[in-house]
Amino acid sequence: MRQLEELIESIAARVNVNVRGAGMDVGPLLRRAVPEDSFSMYYAFYALTSHHPLYFRFEDSSLAGTYFLGKCDVAHSVLYKSDIRGDELKERGTEVDFEGIRIRLVDDEIIRIRNSFLVKTLVHNSSKDPESPEVFKILNTVALHYANIHGTNTEGCFLGPFSTVDLSMFHNCVVGDFSYVQAGDLSHETIGPGRVWIRVRGKFEFDYSFPEGVVEKYVSLDPEFRLQGEFVRFLSERKEDFVAIYSSVQPEPAAGVPQGSFVSPYAVVKGDCRVGENVLVAQRAHIEDSYLGTGANAQENCYILNSTYEGLNVTAHGGKVIHCTLGRKAFVGFNAFVRGREDARIGVGAESIVMPHTIIDAQEPIDIPPKSLVWGYVRRQADLERNRLDLDELAGSRDLALGGLRFSGHGRLFVEAFARRIEHILEENGAYYDGRPETRGHAQKTQNVSFNILQPFLEGGRRGMYPRVAISDGNTERFRLW
Amino acid sequence: MRQLEELIESIAARVNVNVRGAGMDVGPLLRRAVPEDSFSMYYAFYALTSHHPLYFRFEDSSLAGTYFLGKCDVAHSVLYKSDIRGDELKERGTEVDFEGIRIRLVDDEIIRIRNSFLVKTLVHNSSKDPESPEVFKILNTVALHYANIHGTNTEGCFLGPFSTVDLSMFHNCVVGDFSYVQAGDLSHETIGPGRVWIRVRGKFEFDYSFPEGVVEKYVSLDPEFRLQGEFVRFLSERKEDFVAIYSSVQPEPAAGVPQGSFVSPYAVVKGDCRVGENVLVAQRAHIEDSYLGTGANAQENCYILNSTYEGLNVTAHGGKVIHCTLGRKAFVGFNAFVRGREDARIGVGAESIVMPHTIIDAQEPIDIPPKSLVWGYVRRQADLERNRLDLDELAGSRDLALGGLRFSGHGRLFVEAFARRIEHILEENGAYYDGRPETRGHAQKTQNVSFNILQPFLEGGRRGMYPRVAISDGNTERFRLW
Repeated sequence: MRQLEELIESIAARVNVNVRGAGMDVGPLLRRAVPEDSFSMYYAFYALTSHHPLYFRFEDSSLAGTYFLGKCDVAHSVLYKSDIRGDELKERGTEVDFEGIRIRLVDDEIIRIRNSFLVKTLVHNSSKDPESPEVFKILNTVALHYANIHGTNTEGCFLGPFSTVDLSMFHNCVVGDFSYVQAGDLSHETIGPGRVWIRVRGKFEFDYSFPEGVVEKYVSLDPEFRLQGEFVRFLSERKEDFVAIYSSVQPEPAAGVPQGSFVSPYAVVKGDCRVGENVLVAQRAHIEDSYLGTGANAQENCYILNSTYEGLNVTAHGGKVIHCTLGRKAFVGFNAFVRGREDARIGVGAESIVMPHTIIDAQEPIDIPPKSLVWGYVRRQADLERNRLDLDELAGSRDLALGGLRFSGHGRLFVEAFARRIEHILEENGAYYDGRPETRGHAQKTQNVSFNILQPFLEGGRRGMYPRVAISDGNTERFRLW
Repeated sequence: MRQLEELIESIAARVNVNVRGAGMDVGPLLRRAVPEDSFSMYYAFYALTSHHPLYFRFEDSSLAGTYFLGKCDVAHSVLYKSDIRGDELKERGTEVDFEGIRIRLVDDEIIRIRNSFLVKTLVHNSSKDPESPEVFKILNTVALHYANIHGTNTEGCFLGPFSTVDLSMFHNCVVGDFSYVQAGDLSHETIGPGRVWIRVRGKFEFDYSFPEGVVEKYVSLDPEFRLQGEFVRFLSERKEDFVAIYSSVQPEPAAGVPQGSFVSPYAVVKGDCRVGENVLVAQRAHIEDSYLGTGANAQENCYILNSTYEGLNVTAHGGKVIHCTLGRKAFVGFNAFVRGREDARIGVGAESIVMPHTIIDAQEPIDIPPKSLVWGYVRRQADLERNRLDLDELAGSRDLALGGLRFSGHGRLFVEAFARRIEHILEENGAYYDGRPETRGHAQKTQNVSFNILQPFLEGGRRGMYPRVAISDGNTERFRLW
């Protein structure tokens, strides 16, 4: 393991240089974040489709259990059971609009990861950096278990477990456990745990922090840097379900899936499940005894149990939905934990939005009316009085405070922006596919995918490290002349 | 499949240019050699160990089901379920002796395959070309089902099914079905089917041809270019046994294998099998209800059923041993078919040599005395009178003719050369491992192997083709600077 140990120390030093302002030392954490044997136990896989650009290079890295799609370039990094999804990478010649200034890409966009340590992190591109729209960068960054890096360049950052950074650029920032941040270009900021912060400068700001003690109950690191809490317990109980799938070269796809829908062979589908048209169930999603209606999607790391989706529902990365009924177009954000019980189901009304990083842990049946916005920590129906707003009402408001939430700016802009984003997600996932090529989304494009499966060295000084690999197609640079 | 079809046509044209002297058109054959769907059904795999040089590049190729080890560079070729084994590739700085002239390698040796079409072909290096000891070449070559290319550069060649070319250089040659040729540097030769030809110029020549009709009974192509005959029937009956193994990313290794032995997880081990110390069972070997004593080996594509190996036995690539007892150091050559029956077992005495491409298909019990040389077609004990020589007797002879065999030159040189080769094979395979590193062979070095598993495109014009891939380690060229 010598090379891998050296790599981890070297990453720790580079990240520490960047986050020294926050007084952090990530070294002990990185040394213990993943059990040593696990690095040589899992394989990485790179997806081949005929719809995504093909270009993959990595060197001097450990990639155990990591999934790659699209153009990726990884060096001197440790990626453990992460998902690096480049399926929205922009192509050369695409015009992008940054606050009214139009920029044309001079090259295909690529994900570049350097000197970084990601554990079970979900990286989804669609980057927002006007300075380098061709490169989506993750540099000198540590992202712990189940963090989401969603279209956010991170340079010299530390992301705590179950945190999300979204559609931004982050320099030298520390993001606490279970915080969600979509606040534009941030530099040298330390964001405490359990904060949900959405800001579009000059337009609106949504800022919520969980009551003290709540985040710790659901997720925290113990003094030995082991992850603990309700989220972890929930995931651990379902860990075994993935073993068989990841032992097979080409796992059997689920039966009875309509043509325009896609259930990843790397998803768990248990018990009595049905999916409608144009449904996407991504890899590492876990579905059990549930119905997903037309155009619904279940993104990576999400769990849907004993639930009914009426259609066009989004379960964003890491969302967990248990004993729920979701009305048409009801939306569940990143890492939201919406846990009903058999005798305490949760109903989410049509077109309602469960904010990212919301915890609804029902002690009694809970019914969320249609067109609601829900956030924070909800355990009983009465909690909704302080953690729910009617979307129409919000659209007509400015500057309000409710149940730990401070909202400033124009409610209308916030509501419109959210609606646009949900539509974008549905479109991108292929929820509106009608047979025309222009309506195809991930559900249609990731069918007929195959994988290059990459394994590490199993012994000696390189144990747990991977060889240098480059994969490309005829449309990109040739490795060599004849 | 458009790209793959174009590739096949282009290879056919290049090979035809080379074998035009023999009046051949390989086009129709290549078009039908592999069912179209099979190209996208299987994956290629590249072995990672800490004992073999790591360098793999390919482009514009289809590699379904093919296994690679060591340094390989493949372009514009179709390799179908082949084994490209570079585990005896020479390292930079190695001195090699070509008939008294010593040459030092200026670079690591690499296997280079271009414009070639190999079906289930076994390629093993240990090349013998003094003109380019750094490159083991397979250029513009077609090799059909279960051919062996063993340390033989082939440029512009056609090898029929179950043929073997061994430790030579071949230019523009055609080798018929089930022929074995180890005859030095050959150019523009056409070798008919069923010939076993071993020649060391100025020393000896062993030349045997099967009686008319025998080869056709065991292997031939029908008018539709489908393989038929006893060999094919035998293999087809056992084909299913490999399915489970090749569906798993890391198949379970066999239990009860001593530390110095290696049973490839990609071998079939069925029924009641036991292996002794320092045994090697290679990938794609098939062992059933058999015992392999200390230092025995079962090489690729070999089948061992209901047999007992007393120790230090070699079953060369493609050898089939059924209802046999092999005495100590008894040797079974390439593609030999030694089929006893429950009521007609075959005993091969200690230190006996069953020549490559021998067919012993017992109609009654057959007992081969120790230190015999056996060749040709044997069905009954009495056949041995015309197909067997005592090795000591041969060593004292010159120029003899017996049962279709013409032997010229010094028997002693032939017997000594064979004995040296068998010792070399045993050493290379680790049969004499005693714990010291210098006694390690394949059995010890290929433990702890992992695989990069490479899959083809599954749809569109590139269906059945593979992306461009390069794999290397830090000791070879870096793909790019930082």
